[in-house]
Amino acid sequence: MDAEIIAVGSELLTPYRQDTNSLFLTDKLNSLGIEVRFKTIVGDDSERLTQAFRAALGRSRLIILTGGLGPTEDDVNRQVVAEALGRPLREVPEIRRRIEARFARLGRTMAENNLRQTLVPEGADWLENKNGTAPGLWIEKDGTAIILLPGPPCELEAMFESVCLPRLARLVPPQCLRNRVYKAVGLAESEVDQRIAPIYKNYANPATTILATPDAIEVHLRARAPSEAEADALLDELGDKIEAALGDYLFSSGGESLEEMVGMYLVLRRKTLAVAESCTGGLLAERLTRVPGSSNYFLGSAVCYSNELKTRLAGVPQKLIEEQGAVSNPVAQALAEGIRRRTGASMGIGITGIAGPGGGTAEKPVGLVFIALADERSTQVREFRFPGDRQRIRHWATQAALEIIRRRIRD
Amino acid sequence: MDAEIIAVGSELLTPYRQDTNSLFLTDKLNSLGIEVRFKTIVGDDSERLTQAFRAALGRSRLIILTGGLGPTEDDVNRQVVAEALGRPLREVPEIRRRIEARFARLGRTMAENNLRQTLVPEGADWLENKNGTAPGLWIEKDGTAIILLPGPPCELEAMFESVCLPRLARLVPPQCLRNRVYKAVGLAESEVDQRIAPIYKNYANPATTILATPDAIEVHLRARAPSEAEADALLDELGDKIEAALGDYLFSSGGESLEEMVGMYLVLRRKTLAVAESCTGGLLAERLTRVPGSSNYFLGSAVCYSNELKTRLAGVPQKLIEEQGAVSNPVAQALAEGIRRRTGASMGIGITGIAGPGGGTAEKPVGLVFIALADERSTQVREFRFPGDRQRIRHWATQAALEIIRRRIRD
Repeated sequence: MDAEIIAVGSELLTPYRQDTNSLFLTDKLNSLGIEVRFKTIVGDDSERLTQAFRAALGRSRLIILTGGLGPTEDDVNRQVVAEALGRPLREVPEIRRRIEARFARLGRTMAENNLRQTLVPEGADWLENKNGTAPGLWIEKDGTAIILLPGPPCELEAMFESVCLPRLARLVPPQCLRNRVYKAVGLAESEVDQRIAPIYKNYANPATTILATPDAIEVHLRARAPSEAEADALLDELGDKIEAALGDYLFSSGGESLEEMVGMYLVLRRKTLAVAESCTGGLLAERLTRVPGSSNYFLGSAVCYSNELKTRLAGVPQKLIEEQGAVSNPVAQALAEGIRRRTGASMGIGITGIAGPGGGTAEKPVGLVFIALADERSTQVREFRFPGDRQRIRHWATQAALEIIRRRIRD
Repeated sequence: MDAEIIAVGSELLTPYRQDTNSLFLTDKLNSLGIEVRFKTIVGDDSERLTQAFRAALGRSRLIILTGGLGPTEDDVNRQVVAEALGRPLREVPEIRRRIEARFARLGRTMAENNLRQTLVPEGADWLENKNGTAPGLWIEKDGTAIILLPGPPCELEAMFESVCLPRLARLVPPQCLRNRVYKAVGLAESEVDQRIAPIYKNYANPATTILATPDAIEVHLRARAPSEAEADALLDELGDKIEAALGDYLFSSGGESLEEMVGMYLVLRRKTLAVAESCTGGLLAERLTRVPGSSNYFLGSAVCYSNELKTRLAGVPQKLIEEQGAVSNPVAQALAEGIRRRTGASMGIGITGIAGPGGGTAEKPVGLVFIALADERSTQVREFRFPGDRQRIRHWATQAALEIIRRRIRD
């Protein structure tokens, strides 16, 4: 079974917005062995959407439309699909009750235009939306399955995973497709490829893709086999060689993020962590607390943006800042040791640097960042020069800090 | 003149890669007053590309194909277009000389398969590629212009700007296209639409698009006119009415983010800000410090993830936490007042809540968040129930906090 995706929304035809839902959908469809053959992007325009939908009907067994289910006039997917299939729209009272209840829970009154979302083409199933008002739709006609999903990613993803994926699994022949994602940090994409290309080029199955993301260099393996055990055996054979080639640059083989791995090590070693961060402005704390349950090991962070707060919240001596400058090796050390002492954490991290665009000098340029880790044994400080703009420098600094924590606590 | 873009490449149908050339092309086309009406993404597959190209021929006056001009077997654009138009391919000796010269300059011998790139459909113009070997193609047939561009962005962009844009400018009537983006917060997308639909529906020009992003409900206006001044006058006429209808829910009309606007107000009023945040885990500080120059008004944040740190960093009485619970109105108030007192900031924000997935009770469910703002006049505390998962709850809490700051400081 081949699929095609039609992403609907005039904003997707501007220079400012891009359809990203199709990446999520493609990943999930591939996991069932379904390949995506066409993607079409069309505006909130009944006539053009009708053209695109009719073309899809003529060639694909699975058509997924995203967006265009909202309450406003320019949300046309429901009407266009109903008309193209010759199925009248009928109001479903149950949907109305749910939308009204959702508004009531949030203490608000339902706007009249939300009633458009209660309409369902005859013979279609509606799909519950746990994160929004617009229900999805599932229609089958002449052996073709048509799925309409809401545009906001959090709504689309929850709906597709909980309802559509199990239902699609029953429509395709069972074959087993297994993925494994290795994540490495501390190597460039080309360095990862140089290490593992001589290995993975000998394997057509699993297929290997190397992908650079801001948080890691990822190595994706995908194996196909009649059974899960056989697919896993294929993954193990290639995977073991890749693990050996990447050594301790590899931080996870189960898809976990760097902050999740740091959290797992901290729990395992019964250690706690506190942070005093300046140029990263709370981003390290934010990444650490993305992980549910992080309150078990993460005590908190002093975001010391002003020099005075470095003293007041993390106990950095004012004299040290005056003598060495706020962005310096000794201040990073004092931040790490100060926050550890004040919070009683097993480990303290201190970060100070220049994220730019302003504030750089010849001696201390934009991108200069000091990161210190203090624990019961010692304090270690490292100096970095990160390239790129403000956001990238802040990101790389948190990435380096997480990697420093991971290496210290793993040993 | 409307345009459509066909992006060709099997990698663009995987979960890992996305067509980004079309964003560049759309921006440049819009500057000539040309709108993009369809984007199609198709693999390196002659049959499917032929389908997509024939559909485009039937409806668009300008068709741009990207990718698929390389030297390998799976680069099919040249052949598909020539066949669909019934134009035989002929070798152009001048292209061959240039490719051979390019290889010679790099000290390499031309591989035989590069000869495919010397083929040009009868009656077509070839376009010089300054950054690679594959020339582009420009074909006109029955009033439709067809442009084939190489896939690598550096090749495509240079070729489009230097050759295609001036040539397209001669095909379209001179006109001006101007955009404006309004951003609102505190209203749902449907509420924004209800307020402004009766207004914008009376205007075909400017065209209006409403867009829900995590950070704002955006209203995009796009006006066409013979001159910049006339386009701006059209934007002003509709824009003024939209501004009046959205009132103080509108926070920017120049594309600025909520955190940028908060920063501008703080600078204008010569005020400073400090934060004590629990469930948002540093995200509010991170958003505030995304703005370059935020060190002028943002002093810092105490990310008090543990109860002990609420006391140590923000001076919340331990007894208060024991009696009221960490997630409570009085603790939010104490966080805001405590961080303000400790840092000497003009304004203190306190946030405490339950981001989930664990930690909720019937009385204090996941999504319950208290946000307090303390300034020299008083402390105001608000209670929220945010829907969604951990990341969304954390995001909505920072969104609400920024909006509370904006309203207080603007008045």
